[in-house]
Amino acid sequence: MHFTSEQRLDDGVLEREFTLGEIPGILWTSGSAPAPLILSGHNGGLHKREPRLVARARHAAAQYGYAVAAIDHPGHGDRPRSAVDERARADLRRAMAAGEPVDEIFESFVVPLVEKAAPEWRATLDALLTLPEIGGPVGYAGMTAVGIRLAVLEPRIAAAGFFAGGYVPRAQREEARQVTVPLLFLLQWDDAGNPRQRALDLFDAFGSKEKTLHANLGGHAGTPWFEADDGNRFFARHLK
Amino acid sequence: MHFTSEQRLDDGVLEREFTLGEIPGILWTSGSAPAPLILSGHNGGLHKREPRLVARARHAAAQYGYAVAAIDHPGHGDRPRSAVDERARADLRRAMAAGEPVDEIFESFVVPLVEKAAPEWRATLDALLTLPEIGGPVGYAGMTAVGIRLAVLEPRIAAAGFFAGGYVPRAQREEARQVTVPLLFLLQWDDAGNPRQRALDLFDAFGSKEKTLHANLGGHAGTPWFEADDGNRFFARHLK
Repeated sequence: MHFTSEQRLDDGVLEREFTLGEIPGILWTSGSAPAPLILSGHNGGLHKREPRLVARARHAAAQYGYAVAAIDHPGHGDRPRSAVDERARADLRRAMAAGEPVDEIFESFVVPLVEKAAPEWRATLDALLTLPEIGGPVGYAGMTAVGIRLAVLEPRIAAAGFFAGGYVPRAQREEARQVTVPLLFLLQWDDAGNPRQRALDLFDAFGSKEKTLHANLGGHAGTPWFEADDGNRFFARHLK
Repeated sequence: MHFTSEQRLDDGVLEREFTLGEIPGILWTSGSAPAPLILSGHNGGLHKREPRLVARARHAAAQYGYAVAAIDHPGHGDRPRSAVDERARADLRRAMAAGEPVDEIFESFVVPLVEKAAPEWRATLDALLTLPEIGGPVGYAGMTAVGIRLAVLEPRIAAAGFFAGGYVPRAQREEARQVTVPLLFLLQWDDAGNPRQRALDLFDAFGSKEKTLHANLGGHAGTPWFEADDGNRFFARHLK
């Protein structure tokens, strides 16, 4: 893991960009004592520099003392896109514009993303946990599909916050039963791209004994800011 | 309004019992400066001294500085039960034991409760707001059926937390569209007596532009304690 830039922000948070092999990432920390770590798994098409993700990460570091890390998944953010990626995106745009079913396109798109992203998170976690300012325990917050895979594979994940805002492959809907860590599941009630009943069924399927659903009015990008605080308090209950 | 007892508790909260005509109630306060008021509407069959209700009220007063009031509704707690009340309760027990449908019994039972309780809350509110240590604004937290009626009738209610844990009459399910205050709707995912889909439909029906659903695993009495804090923070956003 190589740090490629370092910047002290006006909220006192230290923001460092890093690379780990091909994986580019950012780490936000607010102190030198070993802090619990939150892996911030942004949604499918977004960049690790997406403004809402950065705002939440800085808030979690500045106000709650967490270390927060984000990486760009293969084909996302700063990473090159393959011809296959580009074709799947074009297919998706065309199908959505035509009002055609998109489940199979999402399936073809998200399955390989999940398969690649989960091991990359594990490698990133190995590297991050060698830093003296990161002490664990570890939480994951963000994209549901990758988070399910990671929570099933990775015993160091102690709690997870999932955003029911993206396509979850059939394999991960099945795997949900194997997720047993405490869970905060966030749902936008009017998210046009994500059928509400499917999200409620997924919440029901998780194997966790402690799981909480938060639903708010509005579309995909309308999650109210107070949910960032609720998420941080959820982690405060489980990452101590 | 007559205060009939006064006790300073070990958390510093002043607990005063009062009567207002036939209505017995309790007021919890933690200071002398005008505080926002929360009307704590406990569930149908419970007493204003129900331990979880008292614990939540004291916590809201001690930790958040709210004034909190609870009253016994007609036929509940310290108040006499009519022969009609007793018969409805007996019918309900018999039907539940026999596994028979209970909606019509609940309807016969809860409709008059709601009709009587909402004006009693308004009279209690009139009296409480004359006290110098209560400044408003006012929130309601508790039983959904009474809360819907009160939120529709009473413009001084600025925010409401409803527990989807009891029967809501057809009239209040219709009235839900007229509820427009910010809303926190609490649901127990496995509440045997309260069909989940009916609660989700009710959440959907509320007219409020800002409404949040919190659902937790477990049965009717299994609401985790952290929801008390979440409720207090919800009110902190809306009662300032």
